[in-house]
Amino acid sequence: MIEITAREKIYQVIFGTDTPAGQRFDILLITMILLSVLAVIFGSISSIHDHYGVLIFRLEWIFTGLFSIEYLLRIYSSPKRLSYIFSFYGLVDLLSIVPTYLALFIPGASYWLILRLLRVLRVFRVLKLVRYLSEANILLRSMYASRRKVLVFFTVVLVLSVIFGSLMFLVEGPENGFTSIPKSIYWTIVTITTVGYGDIAPQTVVGQIIATMAMLTGYSIIAIPTGIFTAEIAREINTASSNTRCNICERTGHHPDAEYCYHCGIELSET
Amino acid sequence: MIEITAREKIYQVIFGTDTPAGQRFDILLITMILLSVLAVIFGSISSIHDHYGVLIFRLEWIFTGLFSIEYLLRIYSSPKRLSYIFSFYGLVDLLSIVPTYLALFIPGASYWLILRLLRVLRVFRVLKLVRYLSEANILLRSMYASRRKVLVFFTVVLVLSVIFGSLMFLVEGPENGFTSIPKSIYWTIVTITTVGYGDIAPQTVVGQIIATMAMLTGYSIIAIPTGIFTAEIAREINTASSNTRCNICERTGHHPDAEYCYHCGIELSET
Amino acid sequence: MIEITAREKIYQVIFGTDTPAGQRFDILLITMILLSVLAVIFGSISSIHDHYGVLIFRLEWIFTGLFSIEYLLRIYSSPKRLSYIFSFYGLVDLLSIVPTYLALFIPGASYWLILRLLRVLRVFRVLKLVRYLSEANILLRSMYASRRKVLVFFTVVLVLSVIFGSLMFLVEGPENGFTSIPKSIYWTIVTITTVGYGDIAPQTVVGQIIATMAMLTGYSIIAIPTGIFTAEIAREINTASSNTRCNICERTGHHPDAEYCYHCGIELSET
Amino acid sequence: MIEITAREKIYQVIFGTDTPAGQRFDILLITMILLSVLAVIFGSISSIHDHYGVLIFRLEWIFTGLFSIEYLLRIYSSPKRLSYIFSFYGLVDLLSIVPTYLALFIPGASYWLILRLLRVLRVFRVLKLVRYLSEANILLRSMYASRRKVLVFFTVVLVLSVIFGSLMFLVEGPENGFTSIPKSIYWTIVTITTVGYGDIAPQTVVGQIIATMAMLTGYSIIAIPTGIFTAEIAREINTASSNTRCNICERTGHHPDAEYCYHCGIELSET
Repeated sequence: MIEITAREKIYQVIFGTDTPAGQRFDILLITMILLSVLAVIFGSISSIHDHYGVLIFRLEWIFTGLFSIEYLLRIYSSPKRLSYIFSFYGLVDLLSIVPTYLALFIPGASYWLILRLLRVLRVFRVLKLVRYLSEANILLRSMYASRRKVLVFFTVVLVLSVIFGSLMFLVEGPENGFTSIPKSIYWTIVTITTVGYGDIAPQTVVGQIIATMAMLTGYSIIAIPTGIFTAEIAREINTASSNTRCNICERTGHHPDAEYCYHCGIELSET
Repeated sequence: MIEITAREKIYQVIFGTDTPAGQRFDILLITMILLSVLAVIFGSISSIHDHYGVLIFRLEWIFTGLFSIEYLLRIYSSPKRLSYIFSFYGLVDLLSIVPTYLALFIPGASYWLILRLLRVLRVFRVLKLVRYLSEANILLRSMYASRRKVLVFFTVVLVLSVIFGSLMFLVEGPENGFTSIPKSIYWTIVTITTVGYGDIAPQTVVGQIIATMAMLTGYSIIAIPTGIFTAEIAREINTASSNTRCNICERTGHHPDAEYCYHCGIELSET
Repeated sequence: MIEITAREKIYQVIFGTDTPAGQRFDILLITMILLSVLAVIFGSISSIHDHYGVLIFRLEWIFTGLFSIEYLLRIYSSPKRLSYIFSFYGLVDLLSIVPTYLALFIPGASYWLILRLLRVLRVFRVLKLVRYLSEANILLRSMYASRRKVLVFFTVVLVLSVIFGSLMFLVEGPENGFTSIPKSIYWTIVTITTVGYGDIAPQTVVGQIIATMAMLTGYSIIAIPTGIFTAEIAREINTASSNTRCNICERTGHHPDAEYCYHCGIELSET
Repeated sequence: MIEITAREKIYQVIFGTDTPAGQRFDILLITMILLSVLAVIFGSISSIHDHYGVLIFRLEWIFTGLFSIEYLLRIYSSPKRLSYIFSFYGLVDLLSIVPTYLALFIPGASYWLILRLLRVLRVFRVLKLVRYLSEANILLRSMYASRRKVLVFFTVVLVLSVIFGSLMFLVEGPENGFTSIPKSIYWTIVTITTVGYGDIAPQTVVGQIIATMAMLTGYSIIAIPTGIFTAEIAREINTASSNTRCNICERTGHHPDAEYCYHCGIELSET
């Protein structure tokens, strides 16, 4: 019976967010994830790599060791082990430690080590915490509510990019950097999103006129996703106030914290 | 009588979107359009063209053949043939196949082949499908409702571009890349839309001060179309949420709590 | 008495927008303004200037002649001549014709000729027409209502630009293109407004970190003017619907075209 | 007793904003701050420094002298001297004058002089004035109300930047300018915020595809902070329009038509 309790306790601490121990574990985990991510990031700078290579190598093994123990404990304490292993976070947890071990056997495969950066996705575990905050919930629900409108919007953007891109390929041609239609489409997206690197820029007059039209299009259609999302989020924020309805005068639009109807002064009952 | 039924059936499948066969045809058509567009796009990359030129050439003839059959069937099954042929989509359908045939007789006219990319416009046929989704409807109605405000906005943007553009031509002059007023206006639009290629950039102090003003202008007036569109879409979403339609005057857009039509004063029945 | 009527009639046609003749005059004037502006714009392209210089020169004199006659007629028909001459549009009208005459006496002063482009401001006369459209009115009132908030916003942007700019001057220094604080402030505004020419870009690590902060600041504070303006425009659009109040149930929020209360079905009276 | 009155009067004039003398002092102070900031800014231009170096040097000492007197008077008149000295504005006031004196003893430390530009922060003192304007209040409250949503948003942006950045480092590598992961993350933020310097730009096809995804992501998620802030500011403006405050619980934010407090149910009296 002791073993089961220990396992359940480990489960509570590692997976749970309700107990103080679980919250301390989450904060510790986030700290370690961020530190190990920073180690990988700064280890990629060649001057740092040359001077502190050994230190970073050791830190990496410490983090990998701790993450490995955590991974094994997660498997051990999970009530449904297989479903954890093959869940999204289970795979991310595995991918966070495997590259370091693989690098022992496959030397020179340093590029594989980049996969360790998928660790940063583990930060989203903490968003499960945040999820209970109404803030993140409102954002997610607004995004979910506007998903089909945004899809229609992106279809239009892509069709426009293909048309503008092939026009630019036709007008400017390979001699001005528009070497192929995919490259021209890439340029069009750089322009429509108003990023504008300038590595490719129209040189002919007709090309600049088409570019102007693409820019003005991009500049104004940004209003569409913003409009969609703003309307949804405003509705989400207002939902609380319109879900309450006075039983006497049937008015809605009450303050989110309202206890009394603003028109009759009668106590509002929960709906 | 059999022939008429067959023709009507072809019409239903090709033009219609209500029957399962019509929907399957639409999905097949969209797939083929996208594949043929991708073939043209990737065929424009010279390395792919060199290696897979023959394959792409054959694919192009297969797609052109199928689209030709589809075009003939559309003409055949249309109740009003001429009005189909000269409709927007009729012309797009024709332009999608003609360049491939023309390239047989006019060699070297490879640029004409770009016109095949107008095929991508045929994707919007599927938007006719989407059109019935309330999502796309809301976007279109919001855009329609805000069209005059957006027109006023674009007039102001263009007048500002002419003034800023000629000022920059005067201040910077041809020696700093501002070779003519149209080019300066092009630069102004690149700046106001915050694209900022950097192929032309002000070099003089006065030019940089004017550029700063153009940037701040562009940065803040983007708020105008966004504001217009957001307000319209918020209203559309709010009225769409009350789908009530008056039985007498057929008006929609009633208040969510409406009991009487705002136009006739007649009691609204639930739909 | 005939002379007075003629003068009044000229006044009605030139200044008025109510009569059919006045509207036809406005359309003719706009066309001529746009044509003369296009002539100046395209005349600045050296290849066009070389080939069609004489034609453009003649067109310029025709336009200047017609605008001169119009200017004299405006002075002649104005009830208060001096107040017209020294009004904003009076000065713009004068500046539209003076440079062409001046160029006769002061040869080589071709730069003065750019002032003719102030003609484009005369297009805003037609906005007086547009002004009666509720569309432009809503935009102007929203901008007027949000002027103080936008001023506060711009103060913050400028203080941020000074701080970021001097930091970058300190960190990057003249060797990386940040030759002086004004130039660094210019760079900061290019960055905060997300224009990003790339003619100057941070080279040091610390500089890139500060640049990142400036970008994220600019990327998020754009939300502020947009939010201000959207809220104002939404209020403007809703104003009509809340100005009407039912005499019976005292409800507001009626449809802009509402004739009957949505709650009682009682005819709404104008307020 | 005279001394105390004088001290109190100095306090009123220097720290206060209610008396006419206090307001005149504030305007004088802002003018001097702006002038001294402009002197430092333009003094950093080498051509101006060469010609007007002595003038700027003298102006600097005049400003420093006046600010020193002001600083001493602030200390002298403060009821709680230490809490002023160690307050945010107390430290800014000190940092505004110390560099000039330090430069006397530590020659060549001209970079320290940049710290004088922290004077510009003193402009925010005047925002204490502005603070009483409801405009700035609305902006600050909206920002405060949306702080947690914006924090969630920035976490997502940073995680996305790390993932896109390491992908680009893997795909493009040091030979295309992506020399390290921090540099790639810097590039990702330049791209997501749509700044787009173009000093680093993807060269490989896969890199350009990932870049396209980063751009489209940045182009659409800008809608999120805008949506959050717009919704908050719209609510602030709406509640600010009903300035009614409950006499019992002192709550504001009542419905425009409110007759009873939503918290106590007590009848609201007009203010």
